[in-house]
Order: sequence, then C-alpha cells, then structure tokens
Amino acid sequence: MKTDIQIARECELQPITDIASQLGIAPEDIEPYGRYMAKVPISLIDEKKVRQSHLILVTAISPTKTGIGKTTVSIGLTLGLNKIGKKAAVALREPSLGPCFGIKGGAAGGGYAQVLPMEKINLHFTGDFHAVTSAHNTISALLDNYIYQYRKEGFSLREIYWKRVLDVNDRALRNVVTGLRGDGVTSETGFDITPASELMAILCLATSEEDLQRRIENILLGITSDGRPFRVRDLDIAGAITVLLRDALSPNLVQTTEHTPAFIHGGPFANIAHGCSSVLATKMAMTYCDYVVTEAGFGADLGAEKFFDIKCRKAGLQPNLVVIVATTQGLKMHGGVELDHIKEPNTKGLKEGLKNLNRHIRNMRGFGQHVIVTLNLFDFDTPEEVDIIRKNCEDQGVGFAANSAFMQGGEGAVELAQKVVDSIEHYQPQPINFTYPLNDTIEGKIEKVCKIIYGAAAVEFSKTCKKKIESIRTIFADDKDISNYPVCIAKTQFSFSADSTRYGSP
Amino acid sequence: MKTDIQIARECELQPITDIASQLGIAPEDIEPYGRYMAKVPISLIDEKKVRQSHLILVTAISPTKTGIGKTTVSIGLTLGLNKIGKKAAVALREPSLGPCFGIKGGAAGGGYAQVLPMEKINLHFTGDFHAVTSAHNTISALLDNYIYQYRKEGFSLREIYWKRVLDVNDRALRNVVTGLRGDGVTSETGFDITPASELMAILCLATSEEDLQRRIENILLGITSDGRPFRVRDLDIAGAITVLLRDALSPNLVQTTEHTPAFIHGGPFANIAHGCSSVLATKMAMTYCDYVVTEAGFGADLGAEKFFDIKCRKAGLQPNLVVIVATTQGLKMHGGVELDHIKEPNTKGLKEGLKNLNRHIRNMRGFGQHVIVTLNLFDFDTPEEVDIIRKNCEDQGVGFAANSAFMQGGEGAVELAQKVVDSIEHYQPQPINFTYPLNDTIEGKIEKVCKIIYGAAAVEFSKTCKKKIESIRTIFADDKDISNYPVCIAKTQFSFSADSTRYGSP
Amino acid sequence: MKTDIQIARECELQPITDIASQLGIAPEDIEPYGRYMAKVPISLIDEKKVRQSHLILVTAISPTKTGIGKTTVSIGLTLGLNKIGKKAAVALREPSLGPCFGIKGGAAGGGYAQVLPMEKINLHFTGDFHAVTSAHNTISALLDNYIYQYRKEGFSLREIYWKRVLDVNDRALRNVVTGLRGDGVTSETGFDITPASELMAILCLATSEEDLQRRIENILLGITSDGRPFRVRDLDIAGAITVLLRDALSPNLVQTTEHTPAFIHGGPFANIAHGCSSVLATKMAMTYCDYVVTEAGFGADLGAEKFFDIKCRKAGLQPNLVVIVATTQGLKMHGGVELDHIKEPNTKGLKEGLKNLNRHIRNMRGFGQHVIVTLNLFDFDTPEEVDIIRKNCEDQGVGFAANSAFMQGGEGAVELAQKVVDSIEHYQPQPINFTYPLNDTIEGKIEKVCKIIYGAAAVEFSKTCKKKIESIRTIFADDKDISNYPVCIAKTQFSFSADSTRYGSP
Amino acid sequence: MKTDIQIARECELQPITDIASQLGIAPEDIEPYGRYMAKVPISLIDEKKVRQSHLILVTAISPTKTGIGKTTVSIGLTLGLNKIGKKAAVALREPSLGPCFGIKGGAAGGGYAQVLPMEKINLHFTGDFHAVTSAHNTISALLDNYIYQYRKEGFSLREIYWKRVLDVNDRALRNVVTGLRGDGVTSETGFDITPASELMAILCLATSEEDLQRRIENILLGITSDGRPFRVRDLDIAGAITVLLRDALSPNLVQTTEHTPAFIHGGPFANIAHGCSSVLATKMAMTYCDYVVTEAGFGADLGAEKFFDIKCRKAGLQPNLVVIVATTQGLKMHGGVELDHIKEPNTKGLKEGLKNLNRHIRNMRGFGQHVIVTLNLFDFDTPEEVDIIRKNCEDQGVGFAANSAFMQGGEGAVELAQKVVDSIEHYQPQPINFTYPLNDTIEGKIEKVCKIIYGAAAVEFSKTCKKKIESIRTIFADDKDISNYPVCIAKTQFSFSADSTRYGSP
Repeated sequence: MKTDIQIARECELQPITDIASQLGIAPEDIEPYGRYMAKVPISLIDEKKVRQSHLILVTAISPTKTGIGKTTVSIGLTLGLNKIGKKAAVALREPSLGPCFGIKGGAAGGGYAQVLPMEKINLHFTGDFHAVTSAHNTISALLDNYIYQYRKEGFSLREIYWKRVLDVNDRALRNVVTGLRGDGVTSETGFDITPASELMAILCLATSEEDLQRRIENILLGITSDGRPFRVRDLDIAGAITVLLRDALSPNLVQTTEHTPAFIHGGPFANIAHGCSSVLATKMAMTYCDYVVTEAGFGADLGAEKFFDIKCRKAGLQPNLVVIVATTQGLKMHGGVELDHIKEPNTKGLKEGLKNLNRHIRNMRGFGQHVIVTLNLFDFDTPEEVDIIRKNCEDQGVGFAANSAFMQGGEGAVELAQKVVDSIEHYQPQPINFTYPLNDTIEGKIEKVCKIIYGAAAVEFSKTCKKKIESIRTIFADDKDISNYPVCIAKTQFSFSADSTRYGSP
Repeated sequence: MKTDIQIARECELQPITDIASQLGIAPEDIEPYGRYMAKVPISLIDEKKVRQSHLILVTAISPTKTGIGKTTVSIGLTLGLNKIGKKAAVALREPSLGPCFGIKGGAAGGGYAQVLPMEKINLHFTGDFHAVTSAHNTISALLDNYIYQYRKEGFSLREIYWKRVLDVNDRALRNVVTGLRGDGVTSETGFDITPASELMAILCLATSEEDLQRRIENILLGITSDGRPFRVRDLDIAGAITVLLRDALSPNLVQTTEHTPAFIHGGPFANIAHGCSSVLATKMAMTYCDYVVTEAGFGADLGAEKFFDIKCRKAGLQPNLVVIVATTQGLKMHGGVELDHIKEPNTKGLKEGLKNLNRHIRNMRGFGQHVIVTLNLFDFDTPEEVDIIRKNCEDQGVGFAANSAFMQGGEGAVELAQKVVDSIEHYQPQPINFTYPLNDTIEGKIEKVCKIIYGAAAVEFSKTCKKKIESIRTIFADDKDISNYPVCIAKTQFSFSADSTRYGSP
Repeated sequence: MKTDIQIARECELQPITDIASQLGIAPEDIEPYGRYMAKVPISLIDEKKVRQSHLILVTAISPTKTGIGKTTVSIGLTLGLNKIGKKAAVALREPSLGPCFGIKGGAAGGGYAQVLPMEKINLHFTGDFHAVTSAHNTISALLDNYIYQYRKEGFSLREIYWKRVLDVNDRALRNVVTGLRGDGVTSETGFDITPASELMAILCLATSEEDLQRRIENILLGITSDGRPFRVRDLDIAGAITVLLRDALSPNLVQTTEHTPAFIHGGPFANIAHGCSSVLATKMAMTYCDYVVTEAGFGADLGAEKFFDIKCRKAGLQPNLVVIVATTQGLKMHGGVELDHIKEPNTKGLKEGLKNLNRHIRNMRGFGQHVIVTLNLFDFDTPEEVDIIRKNCEDQGVGFAANSAFMQGGEGAVELAQKVVDSIEHYQPQPINFTYPLNDTIEGKIEKVCKIIYGAAAVEFSKTCKKKIESIRTIFADDKDISNYPVCIAKTQFSFSADSTRYGSP
Repeated sequence: MKTDIQIARECELQPITDIASQLGIAPEDIEPYGRYMAKVPISLIDEKKVRQSHLILVTAISPTKTGIGKTTVSIGLTLGLNKIGKKAAVALREPSLGPCFGIKGGAAGGGYAQVLPMEKINLHFTGDFHAVTSAHNTISALLDNYIYQYRKEGFSLREIYWKRVLDVNDRALRNVVTGLRGDGVTSETGFDITPASELMAILCLATSEEDLQRRIENILLGITSDGRPFRVRDLDIAGAITVLLRDALSPNLVQTTEHTPAFIHGGPFANIAHGCSSVLATKMAMTYCDYVVTEAGFGADLGAEKFFDIKCRKAGLQPNLVVIVATTQGLKMHGGVELDHIKEPNTKGLKEGLKNLNRHIRNMRGFGQHVIVTLNLFDFDTPEEVDIIRKNCEDQGVGFAANSAFMQGGEGAVELAQKVVDSIEHYQPQPINFTYPLNDTIEGKIEKVCKIIYGAAAVEFSKTCKKKIESIRTIFADDKDISNYPVCIAKTQFSFSADSTRYGSP
C-alpha cells in the first residue's frame, strides 16, 4: 500500500490560479505563495452568498491514540460532493510545525483524501504560524520592556498571564526564568506552542482587520499591582501587532488530491482553545461554493461544542448538518478492548463502544442538528461490524454511511455525499440551541457545559477556582462586555470525563 | 521633504513576473510570494555567466550613530548603472524584523533609492528569517532532548555552544534558565537574535542544497564530557533541518523604486558573523546581469575583510571594484566634532576625519582592489566640503564621485555609475590578495587581521583565549579541515579599535 | 498580668552546675555553655536506671490556631511532680529560630511554667540547630561537587532528594535555581527549614556517635541514572559530618522557672518528621530521675503515633502513661464555634468538641496506654465547663485533672501530678500495641495508620504514589533492612483528616 | 615529624578558668563554652590600660600558594614574649568553617605554635560565625518580604546589594535565582561565604553593643526605584539583629600550645573586607597584657593597609611595631622560581624575590612604622639563604630575626621576641601616617592607595566605575558622613598588581 507521501508525490498539482478559476476567482485577485498556494483577500467575501451556502460540520467520537481520521473524512466528503456534481470545498485548520516535525503524515488528511502540497502545508505554509509567533513574542518583549521602564515609577503587575510561544515542541522551554544577568526584570515564565497563543484563537474569530485590532487591544496581559486589568491597548501597540498579522488574516487556498479547492486557515488547539479553522476561511469558502465542509478539533464534546457555542454564535453561522466520524478501532477501544487487539473483530467490544458514539449523537441533536454518522473504513473492518454500527444508527434515528475515501478518494465517499445532500435538501436547518445563554453567570455557563455535554452529575468548584471567578468579577466590574463572553473549557480530549484514561461513556 | 514611506507608497509597483522578464527569467520559472516578491530557483545559476559578470563591492568608512547610507548608495549605484544603459542589479541582505520593529525605515535603502515592497521586506518578507528561526530552535529542542534521553547512559556535554534564537529584540531572553519543574535538563542558556544564528551564516555561504546539508552536519553544538566535538550530524537530523531551510535557500527577487531588479537574500550580522548577503543571490544576479552591486556590513574593516577573506575565497568570487561610501557627517565625527554640530560646516574636523577614510582605502587596496570613493550627499553639504574630499581622493590616487541618489534616484548616481564602468573597463581585476593564507595557524590568522586591517601594533592573547585555542587544537586534532577555515572576528563596528568610542584612525 | 518575658526576667537563675548537682551530676562532668546552659555527655546514660524510671508522654487534642499549651503543661506537670516530692525532669524539643523570630514567646513554655534562659534557648541555644544546618549544607555542597566532578565520567542522578536547609523563614528560598554562571551544575532545588532536615530526625533517634554515623551513611541522597540508590556513604564523608554533629549529639540541660532540671534537645517537625525530642535526652533524664515527662508534637494523631511507632519502637522505650491536654477554647473550636466566640461559655459547642478528645483517647488506649486528660485552665473557663469535661472523662473511663500551672507554676499542677503518680503506681505498663508490624508492606503500614489512627474509611493510592512505592521496592530490592523501617506520614496538624479546615472528628 | 593534629592532641589543655586567672580575670567573670573556651564580657575593657599596652602587627610578603605562616609566627612571637617574661597575648581572626572543611590544619597556627582546642576552633567554636550567618540571612528574608509586601504600593529596589551567606564552600550557591513558583519575588542573587558578610566586618569594628546597632542600622541594602538609599533601619529590625549578634560581640578566649592566653574573634576576609580581628578583642588583650600581637590578612599591601587606614584609624589604636614575615619559598617564588623547585637552594631566585619584601618594607615605613623582618624557618632553609635575607634587611635598615616557632614553639622565637621588645623599648611610636585623609574624594582615596601602596603608575577608572562613583555621590548627597568613610579595596592577594600571576614587585 502506498504511503501518504507517495500518493502526494504522484499527484500532478495544478497551478493555484487554475484552482482559483474553478471557484470563479480571477488569477489577479489572489496572492500566490509559490505556484500551488495562495492567499485570497478577505474583501472577496460576500455575506449574501454565505447565507445561501450549506455548511456541514464534521466531528467525531472521542479520539483514541490511533486517531479517528476526521480530516481525511472531511476532505473525502468534499471529494464525494464534487463527484456527484456539487460545488464543494473543505475548510480546515493549519497544522502546527512543532508536533508534526518528524511524524509521517501531519494534519493534511491521508491516503487518497489529502490536501496538497502536503510538505509545504506541513512546514512553513504561507507563514501564518510564523506571523503569530512573531506578533506574540513582540508583545512579550514590549510588555517586559514596559514593566522594566515603568517600575521606577512604581508600576508592576501582580499577575502576568502572557507568556511566549514557539512553534517547536521544546519541553525545556515550558518553564523558564528570563531576565537574568541584569537584562530586564528577572521573572519565571514559559513558552507555549504557537497554536495555543491567544492571537491564534483571535485570528480565527476575527471578521476584519479592524475587528482583529479591536480583539488584540482587548487581550488581557495581566493584573496591575492595584488590581486593574492591563491589556495590549495599555502598551499602545495594537496597530503594529495587527500589521504583523495582516497577511496572516487572509485565508489560504490549496487543492485536494483530486484538484478541488480547499481552504486551510488558522490552527488553534481544541483542548485549550476553540479549535476551529477561521471564520473568514469558512465564509470565503461559502462565498464561492454551495457546500462547505469544515471540522472541529478532537471529539464532539470538545470541538463541536466550541464550534456551536463560540464560533457559530460569534460569527452568525448556521450549519445544516453534523457528520460524526467513527472507526471500528475507536469504538472497540471505547468498548474496553486492549490496544493490541482493536484491529481484530470483536462484536462485544464494538457494541459496548457504541455508547460513546450515541452520547455524541445525543449531544449534537441537543444543539438542534441533523446528524449523519460515517464509518471511516479500514481494510480489516468486517461487513458484520459495519452492519452493527449501521443498525445502531437506525435505532438512534440518524443517517449512516460507510466511506472509504482514504483508500479510494472521492469515489469512496459518494454514498456519504449523497446522504448529506439528501438530508440538507430535505430538512430546513434549525436555529442553534446553544448550551447556555450569553447572559448567564460564569458558573452557570460552566455548569451547563459540564452537565449537558460532558454528562457530569454535579460541578464542584475548587476554592482556587471560586476565588479566581470572584477575582474576575471584581476586576472587570465596570466592563459590561465581560459577562457576554462564551466560556472556553480546557479538558482532555480522550474522554468525556476529566480523566484521560476513562474511555467509553463514563 | 517626503518620508521613505511616502516615496515607497507613491511608487506604482510592477508585477514581479515583469521584473523577472526584464532579467530574462520566464514567469513560470519563479516562485511568487504575493504579487511583488518571488523566489528564483538556484538551478538557474549559470557559473559561466557568473564569471563574465562584473561584481562591485560597496563598503564604507567606520559607521557612526547617524549611519552612512551604504545600502542607499548600493541601490542608487545600481539605478545609475541602469540609467546609463547597463544591465545591473543589486544584491543585498535581508533586514531583521527584531531591531527594525517600530523604527522608521528599516534596511531597505532610503529616499529615491529603495527596494520595494518595503513594508513586506521589513516584516515577514518570504519567510527566510522565520525558517532559520524554526530550524535553529528545532536543533535546540532535539539537542536538549538528546541530552535528556542519553544522560541515563552517562552522556553529557561539558560545554554547549548552541543557544536559541528569536527574531525579536527581547533583552529578557538574552540570559535564561530553561528546563525547570522537571521538564528536561535544567540549564543556563539564552536567545540570540536570528541574524546571529550560525544557520544564517551558513545559508549565505552554501552553494547548493547538498552543500547546505553538509555545512549543517558540521555545526559544532558542544563538547562532550570526554572531550569530543558534538555536531548536528550526531543528532542525525541534518536532513530534516535542510528541508526546513530548503525554500529559504532560494534568492528573493524584488524591485527598486525605478523598477530595476534587486536580490535580497540572507542577513547575517557583520559584527559577529560574516555580514554579507548570500553567495547564491550574488551568483544569481551575476547570471543575469553584467554589473552586480553588493554590500558588506558596517565599515570596511569588518564587512569588507570578511567579504574577501571568507565569502569571496569560499565562493570563488572575483570582485572588480570597491566603492567606499563616506558622508561629511561621518567624517566630521571621526574628526572629533561633537554629534550636535556635525551638520554644520567644519573644515578642520572634516580633514581630520579623512584619516579614517584613508585607512580604509589603504586596506582595500591591500586586497589588490581598485577603489572609488563616493560621497553620499546631504542637502547641508557645502561645495567646499565636497572639494576637500575630492582633493583628498586625488591625493590618495583613487577615484571620487559624489552621489545624490537618495534625493534624486538613479539620476543622482550617474556620475558615480560612469566612473565605476570606466574603471572596470579600464582595469583588469587582480586576484584577491588575502589577509592570511588558509594554512596559517589560528593565532597567525588573527594576528594578521588585527595588524594589517585593524592596525594593531601587537596582539596579546589573554590566558582564557590561549586556553580556548589550545582546546580547539586538541579537540579537533584529527580533523584536517579545521586548519583550513578562515577566521571570523567579532569586533565593534564603530572603531578600528576594540573601543567603540575611539573614532577616527586610532 | 505579667508577660512571659517579665516572668522569665524576674526569675533569678541558678548556676547550671547547681542544677546538675541537684540531679547528681558532678560539675566537672558537664560542658557549660555560658552560666546557665550545659551539655551532658552521653557516656553518663545508664540503661539500667532508664529501665527503672517512669516515662510520661504529654500529647494533646488536635491543635487550633490558639495553641493548646502542651509544652506549658509538660513543664507544669514536672513542677507539680517535684512539688509532691518526686525527682522529675522534663524532656522537650528545641525551638526553631526561624519561625520564632519576632514572635513573643517561642516554644519554651509560658507563664509560670517555662524553661530558662528563655531568650538564649529561643535564639542560638547551644548551637545544635546551627550544627545541623552546617552539616546538612556541607553534604549538599559535597554532593553538588561530586556530581560536577564525576559527570565527565558519565555520573548523574536522575532524582535528587537532598536539598539545603536554613533556620530562617525565607520563602524566597523554597524554590531556587543554583549553579548559574558556570559555577557547578545548574539545577532546580530549594531550601527547607532546619527542623525539617533528615539530619535533625536522625540526631533525635541516634543512640550513640557510632549509631549516628551509621544513620548518616545510610541517608538516601538520590537515585543514580542507572537506578541505584546514592547515599552519603557514597560520598565517603559520613565521618566528617559526624564530627560536625558531635557536640550537637549531647543533651542540653537547663532549668525551669522553679529551678528544677529540664532537658531540651533536638527539634524535628511533627507534621513532616517524627516530631519528638531526642532519645538520648529522654534516656539521660530517665538515668537521673524517677519521673520523666516528654511531649510529642501537634495532636495525638501525629506526634503520639510517631512517638510510639517510631521513637519508642526504635529506642526500646516503655512509657507508663499518656496525658492528653485539652483547652476549652480548642474543644469549642472542634465543636464548630467561631474563633471570635471561643472564649465565651458555650456548652453545646464544648460537648460537640469532645468528640475530638474522645477519639484521641481511643487512639491512645489502642496503643495499650493508660490515659489521663488534663484541662489547661484559662481564667475565662467556667466551673460548668470543667465539669462537663470531667464528666466526659469519667464516662470514657479515663482520669481527669484540671491544671493551672501557667498561672500558678507547680502549685497549679499538684492534682494532676498526684493522679499521674497514683496511676503509675497502680498500673503495670503494658507492652506497646504498635499500629503495624515492621514486616508489613509499605502500603499495609500506611493503610493501618490511616484507618486506625486517622479514621479513614479507605485508602486510595494515587497513580504517582503507587509508582513511587513500586520504584522504592525496585531500587531497594537487595536491601533487606528497608522493609523493616516504620513509615513517617506527613499530614496537616489541624485535623484528623487531610483537610486542615475540618475540625472535630471527621 | 608530627602533624599539627598530633601535637594538638598531645597537649594537655588547662581549664579556661585557669587561663583567665593567668590574665587576672576572675572565673565568674567569663562565660565558658565547654571547658576550654570562653567569652569575655566587653565591659571588662579598660581604655586606660589599652593605651599603656604595646601593639605589634604581624604582616607578610605577598602570599604564595604554599602560605607564609603569618598566624604561626604571630602565635610563636607571643610564645617567645612569654618565654622572656613578658605578659603577652595574641589576637587572631576566627577561621571559616567553609574553606577549612577537610583541609588539614585550618587557620589556628601550626606545629608547636598553635591555638587550642584546634578542632573546636576550626568547627563551630563559640558560634560567632553561625550568629553572623543567622543574622545576615534574617535580614535577607525580611528584605525580600518587605519588597514582596510593598510592591503593591509601588515599592521596588532598582539595585539590591544584600545577598545571602553560608559558612560552606558551595560554589553552586554563588549565583542563584530565588523566589520561584510564586513564593516571593523572583530575583537573581547569590550566596557569599560568611566571612564576606558586611555584618562580619561590622562586628570587628564595633566598639559596643550600641555602636554595633548603629552600624547595622546604617547598612546599605539597595537603592530604591526613585534613587534613595535603602538601609536596614528602613526595615526597622536593627534591634532584633543586634540581639542575634549580642553573644558574638564578646571576644573569645582560648589558650596556646604553651598555655598562654589567646583571643580569637571575628573573621572578615582581607581581600574583600578589612581582614583584621575585632577591635574589641584587641582592646581586651591590651587591657590585660603588656604586649599584644595581632595579624592582618594576606600580604602587607592588603591587610596591613586596611589595618592602619581602617581598623586603627576607626578604633584609635596606636601600633608600636610591624613584623613582616617571609619564607625562603615565598621569596623564591616571587623571584621567578618554579613551584616545583622552591624548596631547593637558589640564591639568584631568592635575591630577585627580595624586591617583593623590600616594597612591603617601604610601604610599612611609609605608615611611620618601625619594621622587623622575620624569616619563618623551614628545615630545608640553608644558612646561606638566611644570611642573604639578613644582609638585605641590614641594607634596608630594618631589624631581622629568623624564628623556628613552628618546630620549637616559644623557644624558637626568643630572638625575635627580644628584638621586638628592644625595638619597642627603644623607639617611641609615631602617629600613623595614613595613606589618605578622610576628607579626600573617593577617587583621591583610591588613587592614593593604588599609587602609594600598590605601586600603580596611574589609575584609570572605567566608565562603569566612574558612573558608580558619581551615582554614590548623587545618592548620598545629603549624607555628610559618607565622605568621611575610608575606602576598602578588593584585590588579589597574590600580587601587588591586579593580575594574580604577576609575582615579585611588578
């Protein structure tokens, strides 16, 4: 069997101008980055067309160590939609260089359902991550400098939330002491990985350059010694930081293994940030296509919740359908089968593991969404196993289609694509039923997500946590907006619960 | 008077494909980065054409706080050469984002002699600095990881030379402690600025991807506890690092304010590294132009010495002429005039300052080069001052031409361009008379540079220094190549001497 | 009312030689430290006389923020015993300079039941803490030096357990990075307070200089990179460290406010170490007195458990009686009364709080001990409250006596002393019923202490904890002795449970 | 030949009360520390008797790696004086535990000229160093705490001069980062060795407890962010710190190998502090003896200069004579003989080395002092070598006597003692001719020491240094006293120059 890289190399790429033309974008309207990648200016977004397009969210059961293949299925579904004559594009997140480095495939799909040029996408791509890194660390440097300059006037921060970032997996940088030997203020801090930067989260939610700058100005860097919030705007540098991110704000256009258009833009982590690709890329795709497939990171409890409660709510997006991806391996793992045996048939384990799937189905329906389950087929899957899952979906009253896009490209996803189109044509989308209203209290929002989505029986706030929430309320007492923010909860991706080893539906 | 930014904005840019066409490069042969920047594949270099082209080095008197305008003159001279009908391009270094950030003009020339699009060049450009940053820090992370993994087997480095880099001016990062709280090995290290990375120096000397990889493999990371050199090749990652730098290896093509081609590629510092733009960009420019103007960082004692002894020697380049840039302000400063008064006429101070110029002239002639001095004209310069300098050059037997490219673009550099062409047509270039032979001892090489170029009466090696040299000899006893390396001396740019406040010709 | 310091100053001290003579020790046999303190050589201990003497342990209900007065009662009981004609001495721990500094009374008793000279005892005393500090930090320095010297030969410790100590409350020293700027190996470590030093714990358990050296040799400093234990003996310095501690090993003799002898020696913390004064001081006191009163730190769940399971077991001591100290304030606090109201009568709260006392009574009886409860009287205590407690003790079947030694010296403890003597004369002491046998597993020992003493329903070992225990088993697989060590559990002193805010008997 | 330890052990010690009686101090007036050491209360000092006593300073040629034996000669001279019937005592510095640890002899003399009990003196002694350590670190802790508490009100120090100390040679503690993990303010600082504490220097200059407290209050801890000096008095803790040092302030009395009295008190380093034993011990010895021998650390350029310009000036002491100690080995080393050959006869090297001796002679005479040179005899010294030195001293016009106190005790120093007595009886002491007047500028004082004592041709102040002096002037502009302080220069002890490898008289 061919490796991803072999398949990618055999694929003769078409000029990016041709891909743009396919969409109806003039070659002179795009900014090429090499011959096969381009940035598309955000001025081309047409909100009217956005409203007419159909948005499909691909999410998954709780992921396992082997992965579920959400990105591959997202690309495959797009290929399938094109195969049956629909104008369709996929909107994905950019991979991070750090964790990818040295690992085979990256986050650009796999098999015959990839986005290309894979190696460039997996390395520097169009420089968006580098821009975020530069912008983030420039803020760090100017913040340090501000503290150093003004400490003579008695200025200091009693808490500093802003660290530094690098797009490299370097654990020795997680906790560092900076400012030694008299250069700057000695302080204990650390480096996060670039996808964890708040700038990355912001970039993906921004709707224009002005909106980006406004969000940057609002970033909370720390709390002053007299208890006031200290923000980027207090450094008076938001304009310069926005300039550093200007190019990064435009969605990136590439192509799939079957030369259909794909947008890859933004890469926040779904366990600590909202984990969705950019609003602008989604809208750009929706401007030019009738069907847009997008994904949300990790399992549906993490990524999809944030997709609805944060991204869609903030961007005014209305999805038409949710596709939940499952694999027999993943289900068996949730059913208690040992890692060494998950490729072997095991009806009992599989059935037991369906509890995880069914809870995600219930959650997605709770948002008022139609759901189709797709099985990401592997060559060791047996017809019996496929039937068990199909039967379960019928019992749950949701659609089901196996797909083999990984092995066959778009051809392998025709059934899934057809079911998706049928469903969308048949059902009118319902307004999203958010997990919590924006005017709820912080505790109320957290409780609702935990109980409704994670299935918690009760939520206990630790002393430290209560103190923090109270401190937020005090510090931001005068800030009317603060109560209208959604909450973004960090949790393990491997389980509904807080314990990464509790599989299934605990 | 218009600012650099105003002039840049008024200038209607031509598509980068048109600039390539001007040179004779087909549009499909370049890799565009947006509409006005492109990378040119190194496969296009033609060594035969390189040998037929004429290479002009622009260097300067010892720089002062006000700057001398070497880049502006380099661009201006190229404009002038084009004005008089010559096919000419300039080859410059890329500016560093860190020190530039927030400063008006960056390092892209000034006035009517700029390279464009200035803002992009000054920010992320084509991502070369980001690639160096990523590659450098990936080595750091893998080195730390190696030490951590193998310390159980007794592996450790008694000295570590490899730090981290960021292209941000962040003094709190100069000295840091990493690896706290049990993540990795706790160690005291620091961040340099990206242009100080050894990878940057290597990128500029490499002649092919294979050569780049070979140089990366040879990088000395530290000395093991049992006294052996520990190199990148010992981490077995040179291939991956080379891939990270692959795109960065290709020269970048942009345009000048008068739409003539300009190559901007590589950005090592001249006080700590060799400080010249890349060999590949120089050769690329020479492949397509009859006249190529390039510059070497800081004063002729630093940048030009390294240009000849390191870059030209290693790359087999044969320059035809050296242009030394001077300003009346700079000369007066070297003549002892106070900073507040250097814009006022001061014949005595000016004459005194000529000693600095004349020593640089002697040094350049010592390399066997023909020299032309050019005065970078400012509006407050008086004819009398210009005459004093002209007269001095006549006395020294070297050419002279004032130029006002900053204020007038190519028109202002026509006289200079003409004198350059005349000289090149008139004189056969002589083989470079290197400051030292490669088979000299380390001490011998250092002594020759100090005495011949810096004018030192004697060279005293400190105990620590002697010990270090001895240790190098011991550690590399079996490495035949080591004795054939040139030396690269770090010194203040502001004076011939080691004391940055001693102007003139101490 | 007079302060402790006023009372102490009014007390005319007797020469320490006179106090020694009282005991029957010749003046030339002691080592004076100034006129009122002396060290008594351990050669004077007579094991036969030790066996004939009577040992009384003073412990207490769970302590509260206001303190219970265990030391004051211990001294007071000794005064009372002397008052009724018994030859009695008290054996106490030395106070730590760090936490004492600046606080009024120190740990030398209070009111008319103090040990003197209070100020000297509270400051440098006879230098024992300084000796422990010096010895501990000398080991640290030599350990660091060893690692530094031998790392060239591949030596390293994968875990280091040995930190540094200072007898100063300096929180900035809790977590530090040492070995910066090339001096030694950079590492993250910290300072504990001197009473937390393992050397302090050892000093209090040692039975001779040879035994001290043996224990020092066995100290586990860390685990080598290949998984072997690394001990002080591997540094080959135990002899020198023992010399540093030689003087500190001899018990210190001082006097009480009524000029009776008192031994103060050793000061380990009871929350993290065994918390008892030295075995040698106890035996020295028992050599020369018929009744020896000693105390164990904090509540009976912490100090007394360790007194029996560690100190008595290891030293072969046989106590005759346990006195549990209570205060009305403390009992009311355990009964849920707010701190602001505990000095006011509150029958209900007091009765509720007796649950804490009764559990400690049960625990002490569980060790096979006779128990007498004493109420440390305050002027705001009412006869009704005293009666309630007395009645409760009758119900529990244990003796009771209020005492006012704080306000009246020995006179105020006559009733208590008499009951103590009666009880001892009446009952034959039973062998200690240890909480666990020495040959139990580590988990078994911990479980038994938690369930039997702390009242835990079940013991859950965290993953980390299980791993650590397993690792101890692996590392010490060949060490037969290791399984015969008692366990020493660190727990909050304020509650039976692990939560310092859960008072009473949770 | 017997080792120092063997000789010490063979010596039967006399009770310290007997030694006190010898001096005329009643047993009940001293504070014993064990049987052979005692503290003598400072109330016994009688200034009138001090003025009648004779003070002899023992100093030396520049020391070498082998040592010169200044302490041994000081003790030996005292023994010699007693031998010839004079009432004489020696006043020495206390040894530091840190550097001594593990080294054979410590700083308590050697051979038959030792102070005893050597082991106790070399370890904890009477706890003075421990008290300084505790007091110093208590200031550190309270300073850190103050900064932490008041930073919310805008307080901060822009420079902190106060570090921590330990009496352990622990190089990993030289440079540390403290205050990690949120405990206190993160800062880069370090540990000095206890003898380098400013408290140690102060202790040795103080003339009473009140004077000690005043000096403690004045200690400069740092400079506030608004440029004011921040002192111990600003922490309001000088009283408490003085209490911690109260016992340490009293001089310690011990005995020599010939049972004559010796005072050992205070131990500041002579390369960084003033390097003399305490003023109080000197005066105590002078109260009870007719002849008092004291020493000043390292060579006469360091210790003796500070003895005169700082200790004598501040304490109003008037020395009668200076004894300069030399060894043939040391002189040969200064004469350029290699370390391996300094025990062999070498007339030429010896003569060359006399230049070092003669410069010290000139310096001492410059202070207005009579000088006697003594050769500390070794068994390999030849008569010819002794004659060369004797002849040289005659030429210089100073007295000379060889002494063999190391090998023979007091008997070996009779000639020296006699010459000392003769000289003192013959010559009236002259008022000290200080190197600089107190009202000189800082620069003036430094220049005079460098030129007059070190033999510098010129003094060049670095930029940093000039800035610092200027900053001192600004900060202390209102402090009239500041200009009246002497200067205390830190310099290598191994050479007159700043280069520790330049022996002889450079």
